[in-house]
Amino acid sequence: MMSMIEIPDGKLIPAVVQDWKTGEVLMLAYMNSIALSRTLETGVAHYWSRSRGKLWRKGETSGNEQIVKEILIDCDEDAILLKVEQRGGACHTGYRSCFYRTLDGRIVGERVFDPDEVYKR
Amino acid sequence: MMSMIEIPDGKLIPAVVQDWKTGEVLMLAYMNSIALSRTLETGVAHYWSRSRGKLWRKGETSGNEQIVKEILIDCDEDAILLKVEQRGGACHTGYRSCFYRTLDGRIVGERVFDPDEVYKR
Repeated sequence: MMSMIEIPDGKLIPAVVQDWKTGEVLMLAYMNSIALSRTLETGVAHYWSRSRGKLWRKGETSGNEQIVKEILIDCDEDAILLKVEQRGGACHTGYRSCFYRTLDGRIVGERVFDPDEVYKR
Repeated sequence: MMSMIEIPDGKLIPAVVQDWKTGEVLMLAYMNSIALSRTLETGVAHYWSRSRGKLWRKGETSGNEQIVKEILIDCDEDAILLKVEQRGGACHTGYRSCFYRTLDGRIVGERVFDPDEVYKR
């Protein structure tokens, strides 16, 4: 994949991640220019982990990779949308989507794996 | 709508906005506690405008309001997902979604209004 629009060095932009078939919003992560380049080179989603301060290939521990099908950029070029094929679940809690709860705490998402098994804690 | 999960004072969190019927991701905006409270009180989406530094009712100029159907929060409570009924288009450029372009600049979105007419520039 070629990119004409680039993320300026040092800038972090939010990336909305969506299931390319169902349209389900799976997670929100952050990308810098390195994460975007690596994603374009490999075809699998890479992000910048703000908590760990390093490049992060989604699924590197869990195996729950995201195969990138399409990337869109928003009007003012400060947010990105990744349409992906999600292996397993996107959320480290075992849910398919990180958005598995309403504001009042009701669970609406589907649990697809057991994080204790996947992350071998 | 009641909320048990709250945004801490002074914190700004990204809000992914999705068409509640089609699943199309319409935009990414930011919310603080005031924007979330106002959204819950009124049932129409309010955001915090980072460029203007003020509370912003989506559609206050254009009429392109967002009627909120469901709000979900992510696992670590630092991103929010709004499922909305979008009046007109979400993007100030006239497209239905702000994500109307691929990274190489190809237009994939649908233009639904003329911003010159709507914003009377």
